[in-house]
Amino acid sequence: MKLNCDLGESFGSWKMGLDSKVMPYIDQASIACGFHAGDPLTLVNTLNLAAKHNVDIGAHPSYPDIVGFGRRSMQCSQEELSAMMLYQIAAVDGVAKSQSLSLTYVKPHGALYNDMMKNEPIRQTILQSISQYNQSGDRALKLMIQATPKFSQHQDEAKRYKVELLAEAFADRCYADDGSLLSRQHEKAIHTQEKMLQQVKQLKEQGTITTVQGKTIALTVDSLCVHGDNMAAVKLIANIKEILS
Amino acid sequence: MKLNCDLGESFGSWKMGLDSKVMPYIDQASIACGFHAGDPLTLVNTLNLAAKHNVDIGAHPSYPDIVGFGRRSMQCSQEELSAMMLYQIAAVDGVAKSQSLSLTYVKPHGALYNDMMKNEPIRQTILQSISQYNQSGDRALKLMIQATPKFSQHQDEAKRYKVELLAEAFADRCYADDGSLLSRQHEKAIHTQEKMLQQVKQLKEQGTITTVQGKTIALTVDSLCVHGDNMAAVKLIANIKEILS
Amino acid sequence: MKLNCDLGESFGSWKMGLDSKVMPYIDQASIACGFHAGDPLTLVNTLNLAAKHNVDIGAHPSYPDIVGFGRRSMQCSQEELSAMMLYQIAAVDGVAKSQSLSLTYVKPHGALYNDMMKNEPIRQTILQSISQYNQSGDRALKLMIQATPKFSQHQDEAKRYKVELLAEAFADRCYADDGSLLSRQHEKAIHTQEKMLQQVKQLKEQGTITTVQGKTIALTVDSLCVHGDNMAAVKLIANIKEILS
Amino acid sequence: MKLNCDLGESFGSWKMGLDSKVMPYIDQASIACGFHAGDPLTLVNTLNLAAKHNVDIGAHPSYPDIVGFGRRSMQCSQEELSAMMLYQIAAVDGVAKSQSLSLTYVKPHGALYNDMMKNEPIRQTILQSISQYNQSGDRALKLMIQATPKFSQHQDEAKRYKVELLAEAFADRCYADDGSLLSRQHEKAIHTQEKMLQQVKQLKEQGTITTVQGKTIALTVDSLCVHGDNMAAVKLIANIKEILS
Repeated sequence: MKLNCDLGESFGSWKMGLDSKVMPYIDQASIACGFHAGDPLTLVNTLNLAAKHNVDIGAHPSYPDIVGFGRRSMQCSQEELSAMMLYQIAAVDGVAKSQSLSLTYVKPHGALYNDMMKNEPIRQTILQSISQYNQSGDRALKLMIQATPKFSQHQDEAKRYKVELLAEAFADRCYADDGSLLSRQHEKAIHTQEKMLQQVKQLKEQGTITTVQGKTIALTVDSLCVHGDNMAAVKLIANIKEILS
Repeated sequence: MKLNCDLGESFGSWKMGLDSKVMPYIDQASIACGFHAGDPLTLVNTLNLAAKHNVDIGAHPSYPDIVGFGRRSMQCSQEELSAMMLYQIAAVDGVAKSQSLSLTYVKPHGALYNDMMKNEPIRQTILQSISQYNQSGDRALKLMIQATPKFSQHQDEAKRYKVELLAEAFADRCYADDGSLLSRQHEKAIHTQEKMLQQVKQLKEQGTITTVQGKTIALTVDSLCVHGDNMAAVKLIANIKEILS
Repeated sequence: MKLNCDLGESFGSWKMGLDSKVMPYIDQASIACGFHAGDPLTLVNTLNLAAKHNVDIGAHPSYPDIVGFGRRSMQCSQEELSAMMLYQIAAVDGVAKSQSLSLTYVKPHGALYNDMMKNEPIRQTILQSISQYNQSGDRALKLMIQATPKFSQHQDEAKRYKVELLAEAFADRCYADDGSLLSRQHEKAIHTQEKMLQQVKQLKEQGTITTVQGKTIALTVDSLCVHGDNMAAVKLIANIKEILS
Repeated sequence: MKLNCDLGESFGSWKMGLDSKVMPYIDQASIACGFHAGDPLTLVNTLNLAAKHNVDIGAHPSYPDIVGFGRRSMQCSQEELSAMMLYQIAAVDGVAKSQSLSLTYVKPHGALYNDMMKNEPIRQTILQSISQYNQSGDRALKLMIQATPKFSQHQDEAKRYKVELLAEAFADRCYADDGSLLSRQHEKAIHTQEKMLQQVKQLKEQGTITTVQGKTIALTVDSLCVHGDNMAAVKLIANIKEILS
């Protein structure tokens, strides 16, 4: 089980995330493409940092909403969404190549990620865009989605587009019985570091998570999503890394 | 001598340029990258149009100024400018590849083009960015600059970055004795279609232009820049095409 | 019954709408505030044009989505929406005052207008924002909404915020039996100028419209929304003006 | 001598400045208008904070360059700059009024501030815009500029526009013999807190500053600009406040 983190989410003079502290611990960096965060210079610097730590890189495309940090769902047409996906993947892929790096996957951000999980046409537009991009070269970019009990269905869907999936779970989020994530505001949302580490351990050893209702459900997980907003979060990542090693 | 035109300069709901009327006549389309014009969907549609007419494509990067259409000079740092160049070239190149097209050149837009001609550090940052991008693949993107009496000096400079230059002249602009362009507002600026066609004919047959002061100067020209803002402009392009054929 | 039109929707170098042709015919100009269209200079110029023709002015606020022209619904929080409304109204009102003009109403644009008609919390946030703005001065900005059979309910709602409503109908749109507008793409959508003028005449003389299903419904209408995208549209406005005079 | 600080410079999810820590110490808050920082919700929240602490508020307009934080000079036309000034002042003034606050001054930001100090046409466009805005109501917004030996000349200039000036000095910057600020990167730039407090004390008691070359020059100062980027900076503000009280 790998560790992934959203990085490169600074914007001009505004800094976000302790990227240089996090990079040593993670395997996959999902890098902002400029539509919710990440101006060109931030992108170049983040890619350099990933190269230095030999971290796999993914494009982290978003709805076009910088002031809203890509967290507001937007009703885009299918052709708009497809063009946005191509543009963002191309920008990160091309800049990465100019730094001698290779993009390996795509993970939609924020509201686009949530909409992808809930909405089949949006998911298929995303798959189609990646498929179209992959046909352009020797690339085989994968799509990272949320690990849920429906993962094998999602894999069947993705196969039709010849796109391989990566499934990610979350250390710092609670799960409902249907495998969906509880809101961070939910009263039963995990808050203690102990509980988070326990969830990681269970995922690693048994391939399951325990829902807030107490049910045990199996999850296929390729990667665990962590966050590096502050030093406490970085400390948690170090602890998770130790469990997974 | 080829014909090039700036295309893909619509933005969302706002349309600019009669791209579909112009494309049949031209050899090279300089396509907006999203920083002064050209949202992702406009970019995809413009690339499709270029593919249909078998037109060479170039990236047309700009300062980041959509509301100002990239016409306002901005004091960017060298590292900002380099990152912007990489980002914009990468975006257009990658989306082009996903449409089975190949980018062949880069032509800076508006204020960035003017600053490149006047300012050596800016020109070198642009050359260095293209050089870095070219090293990432089997690409050999060329840089299109203005044809002036200093072209061979510019070529020497570009060789140090292993970047080939393309020289462009203008049908609809007047020249001063030093080979620079007169402002469109200058009292002696060409206004009649007859004068413009005469300038094209002279460039083709003798490789020279006549300045507003009456001096004849030699210009090495690979491509002639035309504009397709309205039907009169498209008609002019058709007439120029006839001269060049 | 007055005539209103959305104006000031150019953006930087991109022009939209024949504002100077339309202004002589209309009573109310709904002016873009910079969030879907309308940069500061366009705003100043549009206000000057309105002043010249003695036209009432309204703020035409939008979701923050320039590339999408405010046509994509965005899931904004109530406090985000309230702040956006205040900002946009304030910008247009203050610039108007600096041109010796007075703002008299607010008409949300595009997706925000549609969401306002369908979604009570959004409508109430809009009413609350206008109410808060009105308390700041001697202003009594009205809110322009769509004339529907529910108009008196909407008036009751608005009264709780001490905001007066204006009801607008459309000459160039077809109505369904519930008083909602049919999509422009609907097979029965009006296309002939004759039908549009007939709809205006009926509204003026009988205060009713006939739905596409053939039902006659009464509509309270303060203002008729027209569009000035091209010369044919301007011609239609002139004809409508004649009917209403 | 009052204390002023640039506030409201967060942007969406990105936070900048310890505004709530700084507000208790200052007399004047120069509030970002949305062109270099400060989305509508940040603006509303910052105004509320200023109201709570009974702090005077100023508009802090900028060139339109969010990703560059208004720090890159842009070659705008006079009419563009005038429209931008009106728009930004109007937005902050109107939102302030909706929070029962009154704008009292305008202080340009970053590159626009520097250009204003160096460039007479830019300074006059700014004065003209404020003058035009003031004529629209009972407002008499002042313009805050840098205190230099040329201040009385600047006052003569401002009088022609009927705009009153406020002169600001800097605690944390070094001065050259001509009264201009040294770059923060200059080898002789003040770095110790002790030196900064000494500069404040001298300004208060003798109305002079000592340049890096050792010359003593008199400065008329209405307000001292402080910065609240981190807790050390806030501590410094507290110490400065003590000197001034």
